[in-house]
Amino acid sequence: MDGNLFLGVDIGGTKVATVIARPSGQILKHLSTPTDLSSDAATVEGILRTIRAVMDAAQVSPHGIAAIGIGAPGLVNLESGDWFGSTNVRLASPPAPLVALVEERFGRPVFIENDVKAGTLGEHRFGAGKGLQYMVYLSLGTGIAAGVIIDGKLYRGVGQAGEIGHAPVERNGPLCNCGTHGCLEMMASGASIVRRGRAALRAGQDTLIARLADGNPEAITGKLVIEAAAQRDPVALDIMAETASYLAMGVLMIFAAYDPQLLVLAGGLAQASDILLNPLRKALAEQATGQLWDWEDKLALTALGDKAGALGAVALALQNILPEEPA
Amino acid sequence: MDGNLFLGVDIGGTKVATVIARPSGQILKHLSTPTDLSSDAATVEGILRTIRAVMDAAQVSPHGIAAIGIGAPGLVNLESGDWFGSTNVRLASPPAPLVALVEERFGRPVFIENDVKAGTLGEHRFGAGKGLQYMVYLSLGTGIAAGVIIDGKLYRGVGQAGEIGHAPVERNGPLCNCGTHGCLEMMASGASIVRRGRAALRAGQDTLIARLADGNPEAITGKLVIEAAAQRDPVALDIMAETASYLAMGVLMIFAAYDPQLLVLAGGLAQASDILLNPLRKALAEQATGQLWDWEDKLALTALGDKAGALGAVALALQNILPEEPA
Repeated sequence: MDGNLFLGVDIGGTKVATVIARPSGQILKHLSTPTDLSSDAATVEGILRTIRAVMDAAQVSPHGIAAIGIGAPGLVNLESGDWFGSTNVRLASPPAPLVALVEERFGRPVFIENDVKAGTLGEHRFGAGKGLQYMVYLSLGTGIAAGVIIDGKLYRGVGQAGEIGHAPVERNGPLCNCGTHGCLEMMASGASIVRRGRAALRAGQDTLIARLADGNPEAITGKLVIEAAAQRDPVALDIMAETASYLAMGVLMIFAAYDPQLLVLAGGLAQASDILLNPLRKALAEQATGQLWDWEDKLALTALGDKAGALGAVALALQNILPEEPA
Repeated sequence: MDGNLFLGVDIGGTKVATVIARPSGQILKHLSTPTDLSSDAATVEGILRTIRAVMDAAQVSPHGIAAIGIGAPGLVNLESGDWFGSTNVRLASPPAPLVALVEERFGRPVFIENDVKAGTLGEHRFGAGKGLQYMVYLSLGTGIAAGVIIDGKLYRGVGQAGEIGHAPVERNGPLCNCGTHGCLEMMASGASIVRRGRAALRAGQDTLIARLADGNPEAITGKLVIEAAAQRDPVALDIMAETASYLAMGVLMIFAAYDPQLLVLAGGLAQASDILLNPLRKALAEQATGQLWDWEDKLALTALGDKAGALGAVALALQNILPEEPA
């Protein structure tokens, strides 16, 4: 093959993150640009431009790159290389033939995968779950989804295994877009934190959330509620505790279903770290009083942090080009 | 090998069921005896006696049997062949070296497996899930547990994958022996039906359950509540609807986690058929209004009925003696 470097792309709702890395996962250069959501063409062109920019920054030509991996939010077609967009990066006329466009522009082999599944590959190849047979990667952000490693490989079932964000945890909970009442994503995602913050404001509760948002419910974000909780605002702390108690149900569900060696928490909410993880550990201790799942020793934070997605895309490219990990 | 017949044993809380079958799963003889719970020795001796009795009934000597499979409730050690008993078949001094004892008595190769996992193998080899790559077997009875087929084989994870009976579905639900609050088994098992029936009586509700139980809460069984529901008693119907609504959460959890080609419902409660399955389908339609899981086409009843366990033990013996299914 040409080159011995790999380029990984992680398409997010706010930024396109890229890395150029060695097969070991060592990052030579990383570069992010804001996601251009103004049109489908602008989104795709922004991705192509960022790929070019990280190569320029690393002073590497396309010939120096063995393959390019892309982690894209939402639905992808692994065979055609089409990308259908997601709730956060909505395409007006899906699909975009993303793999074909990147291949055409750079003349290198390109592979695409759902972003959570790519993150799973990254954490399994380079991160907290290196070399494990059974690992689950739980992405906590605006949405919730899991990637599952079984026998050292991504598990898909018929196609959507690991979509545990849409398993119900509250029998009579609010209706999600997925059609399910009280699913984990509805009850424990970043979006649910925002919903609870807005409800507190509308109920006229005396809370730092109101002051940080200048009294405007629409100005409330997950970050803002987390900031209020970090400052020990009681209403924000209650919101985090309620969110964490549902998240604990999801974590226990994962242990019961897959019994993995390790459950890796990743995504924006996991990076909020102690503000969510402390109440999560508390909720787990309260809900699962026995030793059945041994979760304390099996819960880890992402080792790749905000590079998990782009390094996951590198891992995706690697496993397609070098199916066996070099010894 | 000697013989071309297989003997399967299913140890239950009320009976020890045995079959002698051909490798095709065709049953030549089946025989059940009541489980003797008077002592550990009596339990084991009862199992040995039943094995002997089914051979006698089929006029087959041990030499006619290629191997014996045992599905045992609760914890088993696959390597040592030890059985530790369960809540329903409690051993005073676990473990019992069951495989060694059966081998000694009959001089044939003996294999043991957890009863739900054995049932899974049976349904996958001979029943509703024949030849599927991805199948889940959900055993609904006094307890709830699943067996999972991934890539055509039993999936265990670190060891207890599929124990989804102990995944929480009610955040503040009652505490199970497993240490978890509001787990699926606590909310949707046969035991939960009994608990709800007793609560209705204690609350003085006017119900056929009270009349069938002669006003004695301790006389209430799952069968009795199901009987009352079959006679359209409103309180019993409400109990079945509540039970089914939690069971629906478990079913959706299974689809979200494993995305199987087929989910097979088995066990005593599944055999109660429409009295539970109609409200389950109703609850699924209400809780999962979207098309995400496509559960309607992927939900099946056991094809092996009350022989699932013993035929599963046959499948276990078969896969150890003839690892590849004959063409």
